[in-house]
Amino acid sequence: LALAVQRRESQVVLGLDPDPRRLWPAAVAAAPTEGSPAQRAAAAVTTHCRAVIDAAGPACVAIKPQLACFERLGAPGREALGAVTEHARDADLLVLADGKRGDIDVTNTAYGQSLFGGVPSPFGDVPGLDADACTASPYMGVDTLQALLAAARVREAGVFVLVRTSNPGAADIEDLELAGGGPLWEQVAAIVDRLGDGVPLADVAAVTGSTAPEHLARMRELMPRAPFLLPGIGAQGGQVQDLGAAFVPGRAGGLVSASRSIAHAGEARQTDPADGARAEAERLRTLAWALA
Amino acid sequence: LALAVQRRESQVVLGLDPDPRRLWPAAVAAAPTEGSPAQRAAAAVTTHCRAVIDAAGPACVAIKPQLACFERLGAPGREALGAVTEHARDADLLVLADGKRGDIDVTNTAYGQSLFGGVPSPFGDVPGLDADACTASPYMGVDTLQALLAAARVREAGVFVLVRTSNPGAADIEDLELAGGGPLWEQVAAIVDRLGDGVPLADVAAVTGSTAPEHLARMRELMPRAPFLLPGIGAQGGQVQDLGAAFVPGRAGGLVSASRSIAHAGEARQTDPADGARAEAERLRTLAWALA
Repeated sequence: LALAVQRRESQVVLGLDPDPRRLWPAAVAAAPTEGSPAQRAAAAVTTHCRAVIDAAGPACVAIKPQLACFERLGAPGREALGAVTEHARDADLLVLADGKRGDIDVTNTAYGQSLFGGVPSPFGDVPGLDADACTASPYMGVDTLQALLAAARVREAGVFVLVRTSNPGAADIEDLELAGGGPLWEQVAAIVDRLGDGVPLADVAAVTGSTAPEHLARMRELMPRAPFLLPGIGAQGGQVQDLGAAFVPGRAGGLVSASRSIAHAGEARQTDPADGARAEAERLRTLAWALA
Repeated sequence: LALAVQRRESQVVLGLDPDPRRLWPAAVAAAPTEGSPAQRAAAAVTTHCRAVIDAAGPACVAIKPQLACFERLGAPGREALGAVTEHARDADLLVLADGKRGDIDVTNTAYGQSLFGGVPSPFGDVPGLDADACTASPYMGVDTLQALLAAARVREAGVFVLVRTSNPGAADIEDLELAGGGPLWEQVAAIVDRLGDGVPLADVAAVTGSTAPEHLARMRELMPRAPFLLPGIGAQGGQVQDLGAAFVPGRAGGLVSASRSIAHAGEARQTDPADGARAEAERLRTLAWALA
């Protein structure tokens, strides 16, 4: 991860949350006229995401496909996800599969097979998505995270664990004060730190919302070696200037994620969607690079 | 749900966690000889799950497909999931899609579109899985659960929220003592109760592990109207006899879930897989019905 950030001179993660009703017009126009709605929508989503990668990708280090947005297009959506991640890899971008998975150990192993290395079968190995990292939910405990991490480590991939997220509801559970002191998310942060592999930028990372930057310094204290994924820039209201504490262990310590604010930048700027996306991704890249 | 339990005289939920290496031999033998490993494995998984439904389904009220096990077979896996859920509906079984989803509101809406009613597109509506319920993770808070629930309610479907699960790691987060008193899972239980629609068996339900039955009475106190899904029977070590408290609001108050212990009952009993599955599902049905 640190090498990729250095090579591409960017900490920007390009979120891909394609909504079939908000695709770039050229992608809709290029969709096939035959096929089911799912097949046509998935083709348009693929074209849209490839175009967003072509425009904004040069300013980014990774893509972060939102699995829900592909899943809602059924089997063609899974084909689209594969095509989009392949396009990103061809463009030298890492792939962070965003699905917030979290289940018992045997099931998290299955999610790991799906997202990383695949699963053996009597008919030969079924390949996985070959992602470089995924997101995970900690609610069910350490054994569940370990199972997902074991599947990731086989491919030298990483796991980003939800710690303190950027949505309003984060206060309901994540911020609950524990009898032992501190909010719940600090306990999760301690688990993230413990599960990491001990190298300067550990393979267990944290999803840490950028809309509550006052927590960032404390998070860095609790997780000195974990890369932070900082969503909530742009569409969710976070400001990249507030994120300095994330970058203490180096530039790759803070990955700045933005999705809709990049894909739809052209609307705000009243320019071509690709030009808007390119300009917004470059703006974020420059802002973040200056902080680290 | 109450009507379905009454009509089918069963509280047994048939978990479907197909592992391509542990399918019934007849399903592997019937797989096509052409196609990719994913296509062939997905065809075998479909045949296997249909056969399990044919054998054990008459003793059950619902199936619970484990989404991870289908996702790891790529796009053909999504086709298999659709075929299996359709087979279950044809057999008059409810479908509880087990994916433990949990993300910000806009993403949980997308998961809801995927699992329930589908998503509109410029090419026509893309259908969803049309499930009767799904499982959800509460870590990111109430707003995220509300978004998923809104998508479910459009189809009169329900949401089962993780409360206190049956895996060893449940102690790491779910059991943490809060400064305000009680463990974290009691706080989640209060949220589940509050989100429910107020009818005797609410549309917000709880996943409550059966390996810690000492918690069940307290859960029932906190969630008097929520259906409980009780996994961990069989393969995970829970005993159905310990679950009496779940059934206080009626028979549908406690759904007893079992997967591997049904699908692989034939191995333990040294009988045909279908005969073993049928006998084990009937055994669970009779046990649970006697308790309620």
